[in-house]
Amino acid sequence: MKTGVIGSTGYAGQQLVWFLNNHKKVEISFLASHSYSGNEYASIYKNHRGFMQSNCINIQQVYENLSSVDIVFIALPHGKSMNITKGLLSRGVKVIDLGADFRLKGSELYKEWYELDHQGEELLKDAVYGLPELNKKSVQRAQLIANPGCYPTASILALAPLIKNNLIDASTIIIDAKSGVSGAGRSLSTGTLFCECNETVKAYKVGEHRHIPEIEQELSLLADENINLLFTPHLVPMNRGILATCYGKASTEVSLADLQKIYTDFYSEDYFVRVVEDIPETKWVTGSNFCDIGIKFDKRTNRIIAISAIDNLIKGAAGQAVQNMNIMCGFDEWEGLNFPSMMP
Amino acid sequence: MKTGVIGSTGYAGQQLVWFLNNHKKVEISFLASHSYSGNEYASIYKNHRGFMQSNCINIQQVYENLSSVDIVFIALPHGKSMNITKGLLSRGVKVIDLGADFRLKGSELYKEWYELDHQGEELLKDAVYGLPELNKKSVQRAQLIANPGCYPTASILALAPLIKNNLIDASTIIIDAKSGVSGAGRSLSTGTLFCECNETVKAYKVGEHRHIPEIEQELSLLADENINLLFTPHLVPMNRGILATCYGKASTEVSLADLQKIYTDFYSEDYFVRVVEDIPETKWVTGSNFCDIGIKFDKRTNRIIAISAIDNLIKGAAGQAVQNMNIMCGFDEWEGLNFPSMMP
Amino acid sequence: MKTGVIGSTGYAGQQLVWFLNNHKKVEISFLASHSYSGNEYASIYKNHRGFMQSNCINIQQVYENLSSVDIVFIALPHGKSMNITKGLLSRGVKVIDLGADFRLKGSELYKEWYELDHQGEELLKDAVYGLPELNKKSVQRAQLIANPGCYPTASILALAPLIKNNLIDASTIIIDAKSGVSGAGRSLSTGTLFCECNETVKAYKVGEHRHIPEIEQELSLLADENINLLFTPHLVPMNRGILATCYGKASTEVSLADLQKIYTDFYSEDYFVRVVEDIPETKWVTGSNFCDIGIKFDKRTNRIIAISAIDNLIKGAAGQAVQNMNIMCGFDEWEGLNFPSMMP
Amino acid sequence: MKTGVIGSTGYAGQQLVWFLNNHKKVEISFLASHSYSGNEYASIYKNHRGFMQSNCINIQQVYENLSSVDIVFIALPHGKSMNITKGLLSRGVKVIDLGADFRLKGSELYKEWYELDHQGEELLKDAVYGLPELNKKSVQRAQLIANPGCYPTASILALAPLIKNNLIDASTIIIDAKSGVSGAGRSLSTGTLFCECNETVKAYKVGEHRHIPEIEQELSLLADENINLLFTPHLVPMNRGILATCYGKASTEVSLADLQKIYTDFYSEDYFVRVVEDIPETKWVTGSNFCDIGIKFDKRTNRIIAISAIDNLIKGAAGQAVQNMNIMCGFDEWEGLNFPSMMP
Repeated sequence: MKTGVIGSTGYAGQQLVWFLNNHKKVEISFLASHSYSGNEYASIYKNHRGFMQSNCINIQQVYENLSSVDIVFIALPHGKSMNITKGLLSRGVKVIDLGADFRLKGSELYKEWYELDHQGEELLKDAVYGLPELNKKSVQRAQLIANPGCYPTASILALAPLIKNNLIDASTIIIDAKSGVSGAGRSLSTGTLFCECNETVKAYKVGEHRHIPEIEQELSLLADENINLLFTPHLVPMNRGILATCYGKASTEVSLADLQKIYTDFYSEDYFVRVVEDIPETKWVTGSNFCDIGIKFDKRTNRIIAISAIDNLIKGAAGQAVQNMNIMCGFDEWEGLNFPSMMP
Repeated sequence: MKTGVIGSTGYAGQQLVWFLNNHKKVEISFLASHSYSGNEYASIYKNHRGFMQSNCINIQQVYENLSSVDIVFIALPHGKSMNITKGLLSRGVKVIDLGADFRLKGSELYKEWYELDHQGEELLKDAVYGLPELNKKSVQRAQLIANPGCYPTASILALAPLIKNNLIDASTIIIDAKSGVSGAGRSLSTGTLFCECNETVKAYKVGEHRHIPEIEQELSLLADENINLLFTPHLVPMNRGILATCYGKASTEVSLADLQKIYTDFYSEDYFVRVVEDIPETKWVTGSNFCDIGIKFDKRTNRIIAISAIDNLIKGAAGQAVQNMNIMCGFDEWEGLNFPSMMP
Repeated sequence: MKTGVIGSTGYAGQQLVWFLNNHKKVEISFLASHSYSGNEYASIYKNHRGFMQSNCINIQQVYENLSSVDIVFIALPHGKSMNITKGLLSRGVKVIDLGADFRLKGSELYKEWYELDHQGEELLKDAVYGLPELNKKSVQRAQLIANPGCYPTASILALAPLIKNNLIDASTIIIDAKSGVSGAGRSLSTGTLFCECNETVKAYKVGEHRHIPEIEQELSLLADENINLLFTPHLVPMNRGILATCYGKASTEVSLADLQKIYTDFYSEDYFVRVVEDIPETKWVTGSNFCDIGIKFDKRTNRIIAISAIDNLIKGAAGQAVQNMNIMCGFDEWEGLNFPSMMP
Repeated sequence: MKTGVIGSTGYAGQQLVWFLNNHKKVEISFLASHSYSGNEYASIYKNHRGFMQSNCINIQQVYENLSSVDIVFIALPHGKSMNITKGLLSRGVKVIDLGADFRLKGSELYKEWYELDHQGEELLKDAVYGLPELNKKSVQRAQLIANPGCYPTASILALAPLIKNNLIDASTIIIDAKSGVSGAGRSLSTGTLFCECNETVKAYKVGEHRHIPEIEQELSLLADENINLLFTPHLVPMNRGILATCYGKASTEVSLADLQKIYTDFYSEDYFVRVVEDIPETKWVTGSNFCDIGIKFDKRTNRIIAISAIDNLIKGAAGQAVQNMNIMCGFDEWEGLNFPSMMP
């Protein structure tokens, strides 16, 4: 299996390189980078010294390096992968896009939220939303995977069993999510300087984050009705991790034990979801591809609270991309991903 | 004005000593500490070297040091101040209790949430809940102040204008709060070790935190109806700061501009509440007695989001105690508290 | 007393605004900023909301705002204050320059280390190196203060008593310093992004940092001989603080008790230096203008170790600038600076 | 290969369990813990959920679980493994001791630094100091490995090429080391609480740390003369990582290029040492078994600076223990350890 990575020097891209380079059944054919083309990869991410000898190529050189490449991963900002994906698919190469360009089913919705015309509209209907816990069969057959966003991965996995089983009033869903700073990427901005993020917590893009339509789309498909929900992301002073605290009004009488069983059954065949009996914490999953989910029921207000924890760069990006690749290739789902979080 | 501090070596107590020692109109008569009695204060908190020459006394010695003391602050764990307060009041000394013993109006409620019999029941009716923005007049006349908890301060200030003006359906209130680790105090526990808190975020005591009845009591008084709400605290890897993200369903049609005006009017005479037009962030308030509040309205789900930020040790504890003292003594409310957050 | 600040929106500039605005005897006439001219100051540093109503002016507008201004503070990168200072002095305004342009006595040395021609050579001889603990008398009479760098402040204060008293072999001095990230300033660079600084420690510019000639110059003056020393700065994941661990071979027989006494005597009249008997730690000084110094003697290797801790933005920049201003103006040295570190 | 771990619930023990459980050629027979015997391992370290089903046993139960166990790892505080080791060796089980009990060759030296009588004196002569880069051959044949301390690993690897090649005056060695907080372990103490360690840096045990005799012993062996050196550890607010900045006066004329070559040659067959051309940083090694070493030469003071970075829990403890096990068992040295640091 030969792969290439476009956008290999962002945080998600680098995490992907880490996994692919440690994956027994995979070879990396090229690493492309806009910002660092020509540079030795291990001079940018020095953890890779001794592991990665290649230099980064630029995106134009990708096409000269496609021979016998099976899958290309793209980890670029939204808007940047649409055209590249078309080019790659037309050459018979499968694509796993870690960006947002193929996640939304409609180009109008894309335009509404991303303020861009979609230039690969014709590909949207065949793009598979690569959340393996919900769409494993489609992933197996996919040519183009839209790898889910980090917040949507945590949010959808937390809420899916409730939605699927009609346990909450969908008009009451509130997702209050907390993310580490690596989610903001490695490009320069005052807001992600150490002294601006450290020792503080803030909410941002309240009700306006671009991951909202993606969460709503997938949950609406599960519910078979249109769902609008409130999503509030927060920035927390840590490198990695997302905790999604999800609230909904119980629509039927249900005990905590029932809920535990429903969740456990729902994810019984999903290696990377661990339904836990306590309350998840990001440190138990960061550095791994696991999603821990805990459920609480507050009788006093009749609210169900589902809390999920993931590593935003792994289950929320690169690890999930490798999981998708494994499924597409018929490997074990956990190949190259099968280790727990390293703590502390 | 002479004061004393009982429980002066916890984090809130120490912050209080900082303020009292810098307050132009106040003198500290004694510092009492269970854990460190006999020790030089500045050997425990070495920031105070050169500022504080006293040794800590034990709680028994307090009574020998009361002569001409006007106000005693108590910063002890719940259950520990009930009897001490009785003793002090009976000697004509006013008390500002930073603990939980006098916050709830009913001893049954206290027993239900704190699992202890209240031993100062007769004092409850005259204890004033010391949130000056709501109760300034009662504070002026108080002999006993129940200084609010940190989460309740942030939560009540965020929600009061909505409740008072009947703008939200009270049965839909959810408070998702994020706190720095100093809120957990300085006593030893594995959970507050550096390596256990750093680089992780978690929810805890979901729907079960002891600050819940306090928030409900004060908001119910404002609403003139009984309110039950859902409160979820989270622990965030930073020393100080609380961000309370508060959600409620709009019960009438209202614009964001209306909401801004309602909040601004509500707090027009409150020096320490700053209604902001953006989204608050804890770093702009930590190290100060300010509470920043921002409001958002999500049309798609008809939810109002009120977000408040405070320093848990200052507006959430010691600063508010000093603010209450200032009001009780007829000083300017901001005396000794009148500086902004030091950042970064 | 009227003052202005040029470079008011960097971290040191902002800290200076904080102090000046809280200083009872000072008024701020203008805040100039290259990056944010025209913007409301409190919209950039939101901690100042309610405290600072002014907008930033640009550097050109400074000259229109000088009327009755007594002292201007400049907090600009090196090379940027030379010409501005000339203009201000020629208008009879005193200058406290927090940058590096007037710290070195020779323009060749400046050129060697800063790779720039000095354009205010004629001012160098009258510029006073504003370390009040060594140069209080010159500061009193100064028109132009070169406010020391952060590392030099910590290093010189730690070593001065040893040098002055001929206690160490000057050829063996090694300063191993550790700084928080705010020392790197607020301008954008990959190296100061949260995810790049957090959870890591590194040395940088080993033996090449521009603060070296400044430390050597001042210690050479004290020693009355030319001193070359080795200086290694490190970056530590915290906002503020410098710890300088300074090593030298004892040149005479001396006990730890002797050393303690020598230090205590040396700084007996210096309010902001606290000679401590234990080992300093930055948390006891951050947020204050204090410098804590502790001394150890290692018999096994005959080395004296002097360790100092400061807040790089306060005693290492803005606080020291205010201390210098106080001395120049005949105020108490501690006016506006007289509070301990706020901890935790 | 069957192994057991005694002291499996400290930070080093847990890291060891992580590695052993992911090691293809190893099986874990038991996990012993003083504090948590009887508890499910994955309930203490929840990252191991799904990976580790066992409960902890107590130390008494170890002897009932030894059948067919080849190697036992001990990760206990000093003084606790002496007797256990004797018992295990007498049953024919090999021991890798991560504690300090067998590191020093003389029982007097042990008594001097650890203030305890050694109860396994007779084992000291055969115990192998398990720094594979220096002692690979002895490790191959060892029955008892004294796994090096974290600071000694970083310090010795940084200095060994200089000492071995007589490049520095050994009487001038200063090691200024910076460690993350996990080095202090998981037992309760005020000093390792989050709010006490966060946002601060301090030196501790200056010239008195128990790792000093260990560093001196190994470097003296290399030098074939007695070396005394100055060692200053510092605590830095991060979970993992040690940076050792090591200084020595050059004893012969040597260029930086020479030094680079000497280091590269010295470690040419050592997989886990990477001699780098820049300055190491802990983030490039944390989460891995690598030791990065960079060298600088300061002409102005004729000092060589060798800087090393390791993960204190991996190359400084559990990873090195596994590396030793691999060598003892004839496996590839990197088996189960062959991946780079995960960053950020």
